[in-house]
Amino acid sequence: MKISYLAAFLICLATAIVAQTPPEAAREYTAAHRTELVQQFSELLSIPNVAADPANLKRNADVLLEKLRERGIDSRLLFLPGAPAVVFGQIDVPGAQHTIVFYAHYDGQPVTPLEWDGGSPFTPIVREVNGEQRIYARSAGDDKAAVFAQLTAFDALKAAAIPLRANLRFVWEGEEEAGSPHLEQILNANRDLVHGDVWLVCDGPVDQSGQQTVVFGARGDAHLEITVYGPHHGLHSGHYGNWAPNPAMMLAQLLAGMKGEDGRVLVPHFYEGIEPLSAAEKEALAGAPVNDRMLMNAFWLGHVDGAGAHLLELINQPSLNINGFSSGQTGARATNVIPPTATADLDLRLVVGVDWRAQQQRVVDFIQSRGYFVVDREPTQQVLLEHPRVAMVVRDEAGYNAVRTPMDLPIAHEVIEAVKSARKDVLLLPTMGGSVPLGAMERAAQTRTITVPIANYDDNQHAANENLRLQNLWDGVETMAALLDMK
Amino acid sequence: MKISYLAAFLICLATAIVAQTPPEAAREYTAAHRTELVQQFSELLSIPNVAADPANLKRNADVLLEKLRERGIDSRLLFLPGAPAVVFGQIDVPGAQHTIVFYAHYDGQPVTPLEWDGGSPFTPIVREVNGEQRIYARSAGDDKAAVFAQLTAFDALKAAAIPLRANLRFVWEGEEEAGSPHLEQILNANRDLVHGDVWLVCDGPVDQSGQQTVVFGARGDAHLEITVYGPHHGLHSGHYGNWAPNPAMMLAQLLAGMKGEDGRVLVPHFYEGIEPLSAAEKEALAGAPVNDRMLMNAFWLGHVDGAGAHLLELINQPSLNINGFSSGQTGARATNVIPPTATADLDLRLVVGVDWRAQQQRVVDFIQSRGYFVVDREPTQQVLLEHPRVAMVVRDEAGYNAVRTPMDLPIAHEVIEAVKSARKDVLLLPTMGGSVPLGAMERAAQTRTITVPIANYDDNQHAANENLRLQNLWDGVETMAALLDMK
Repeated sequence: MKISYLAAFLICLATAIVAQTPPEAAREYTAAHRTELVQQFSELLSIPNVAADPANLKRNADVLLEKLRERGIDSRLLFLPGAPAVVFGQIDVPGAQHTIVFYAHYDGQPVTPLEWDGGSPFTPIVREVNGEQRIYARSAGDDKAAVFAQLTAFDALKAAAIPLRANLRFVWEGEEEAGSPHLEQILNANRDLVHGDVWLVCDGPVDQSGQQTVVFGARGDAHLEITVYGPHHGLHSGHYGNWAPNPAMMLAQLLAGMKGEDGRVLVPHFYEGIEPLSAAEKEALAGAPVNDRMLMNAFWLGHVDGAGAHLLELINQPSLNINGFSSGQTGARATNVIPPTATADLDLRLVVGVDWRAQQQRVVDFIQSRGYFVVDREPTQQVLLEHPRVAMVVRDEAGYNAVRTPMDLPIAHEVIEAVKSARKDVLLLPTMGGSVPLGAMERAAQTRTITVPIANYDDNQHAANENLRLQNLWDGVETMAALLDMK
Repeated sequence: MKISYLAAFLICLATAIVAQTPPEAAREYTAAHRTELVQQFSELLSIPNVAADPANLKRNADVLLEKLRERGIDSRLLFLPGAPAVVFGQIDVPGAQHTIVFYAHYDGQPVTPLEWDGGSPFTPIVREVNGEQRIYARSAGDDKAAVFAQLTAFDALKAAAIPLRANLRFVWEGEEEAGSPHLEQILNANRDLVHGDVWLVCDGPVDQSGQQTVVFGARGDAHLEITVYGPHHGLHSGHYGNWAPNPAMMLAQLLAGMKGEDGRVLVPHFYEGIEPLSAAEKEALAGAPVNDRMLMNAFWLGHVDGAGAHLLELINQPSLNINGFSSGQTGARATNVIPPTATADLDLRLVVGVDWRAQQQRVVDFIQSRGYFVVDREPTQQVLLEHPRVAMVVRDEAGYNAVRTPMDLPIAHEVIEAVKSARKDVLLLPTMGGSVPLGAMERAAQTRTITVPIANYDDNQHAANENLRLQNLWDGVETMAALLDMK
């Protein structure tokens, strides 16, 4: 399309007269297009995105690649055999001084459809809850919200003819919920493409107070799966109860020894090596709102762990969580049996100064200290007969360490200012409780990371009935517009 | 069909000449009809018989009623609204001095088809294992084997024209695996029908040594389901891990406190009130084979509970078993979540002197002593907010007490002699580890109970791949023939 000089002049004049800021342009744009935006977001959410379904993960990547190309953005898929592709987009602005990289991820946590109201995590539905509209589907909050907000903010700036000032990159991962096992390798193979002055990691929820949050780090993450052994097959609990060891009881005793009743982890050395918070970080924490009582009511909790410490303090400590355990059957399917095995999946969250492999090892050492012979694969009859107690511990290889970016770097200052231009009451936090592979990003892209989440805290992320409050989406588009506009 | 006097005389003469004992007649009969007997047993096993499927439970009852009627036995179903029918058969022998009642049950434990080789618990299959033929299906051992052995023994006596000498009753229950909640009421409503000098309870496995066993009691049984509460819905284990209490950890800590590492139950008063064994019972126990080492090898067990006591001693103690526990998901479906609830199903086995409701209460008292507010239904938000820890405990109402019949009663002597006429190396035991509602039988039928099991010990009863060693079926038919022949 050709434009006459006069027309171009008139457009510039109109833009200058309206003098919209990027957040204002974003607000006007989303207000004008809500129905179609919800429809487009819903289409994106309807594509299943769990690790167990690589064909649909690929569909997600293809659709996102097409969305970037439709917008005239130079785009491609960054591949590694056996891993979901990273969707990559690149905008170079002549004369730009900085390169800003927008990270998000398009994959979601595993789903158990029966746990969802309606039974289908990939049939998005908008419901009104307490007068607010929310859209329900896996990844509505974590993390397709961020992908969609970035695309929409880009459209809003274009519609308002606001020119970009920095080089921009989009890096949308497809393996974050599996622990990003290939991300660093993919980034390393594309160093030149993914390098930037800063990576804006758009993932996770904002503070529970609802304030827009800028977070300077994230906890690391590591996993273990522990299986302990009773009889080789289920035994009648009458004929053998009292004699054949019950693996559910053995596992209960093992797990119970890992934590005190106040939630403090008793695994030796678990808290060793933690890097203390800086003065600026302590100050930020001290000024943050205390949402604990509100959250206890929201979550129906009559007590919390941590011996009186606040949530924001506690997420600056490493944690040990049982994601799930199982042995035999419960409820209507329970039978009078001594089950053959009992299994627990543990999630270890890490803070700066604690290495993820060392933390896994501390748990393994603890298991050994409780009299278990630890193996890393299904034990044979001989192994089981030779040892009073045997535990199979499978260490998930997709762990990573925590990262914190100093709050007083110049680029940190610029990001904070951009976010403040979009949202009032911006909250700064040293770390978030959740995990993002910031270290892999920083090493491979030679960059720093700052996290700018947009989802509501109560989005049920990682659980059934995940959702996004639509107002968080509209607010998030404004925030993203301000960040796309950075110079 | 009419028979001439001469023919009748010749048949009597032939019978007298052969002079078969009932066990011999049974052996000859089963040897001559193996293929068709396996086929008939297989048909009986192919009718699903779990409590969750009342329509098929009724089909079992109807089929068994028809089998009794085909044999000319006066039969009926004993009903109570909402309960599976008891199949009842009655043979009155003119001039008989005694009435012998044969008890068995036609229902089976719940099934989880995915755990079964082949995936179907109701498609019976004969497999050769270590040179022995076994038939695999739910209830192959527990307890359709006994029903089928009684029918076949009856046919064998008839084929050999061996006349019956006592009045006989067949009482085949359809609710044993659910704890026989209606048995006593049904028996009470039919006292005159079900009364006998002795009830022969044909259920459970023979001793692990393979010896035919006569058992003079059974442990009682009681159940509890415990659910503890974390957040109202699953929470992200990163954002809330360390702060929101994890119900899987809470349940692990609660359960771990119930047993020492040697398997001794630590619930206060758990072993109080136990009636000591008599001299005869102690003597019987002392003479029984010790199978523990063989069983440890068979079950791949590197250690057992009980601080050195033998299995046969330990089943004369009350037990506490975790039938199953669950919280969140494990394996490929595990997500990084703090689950909302954790549930465990407990099975309490009881010995004479310990009341089942009192034993349930001791466990509830223990839960309360660990700081839990105990409710019997799903707690409201208010209840959860008002109490630091809440446990919902559902007490199964279908429990019952243990029973032991003295080994030196005259009727006990007669039963022992009958069994010894069929099988050499008969083993006498004071109690079996498993449970049968002997007390309900004794009260309602004004009788004594003696248990004569026929299944192999390794029949996977209550578990996946339940099976019956066919040789146990043939041996069992001989034992039942000897008992049907009691005078």
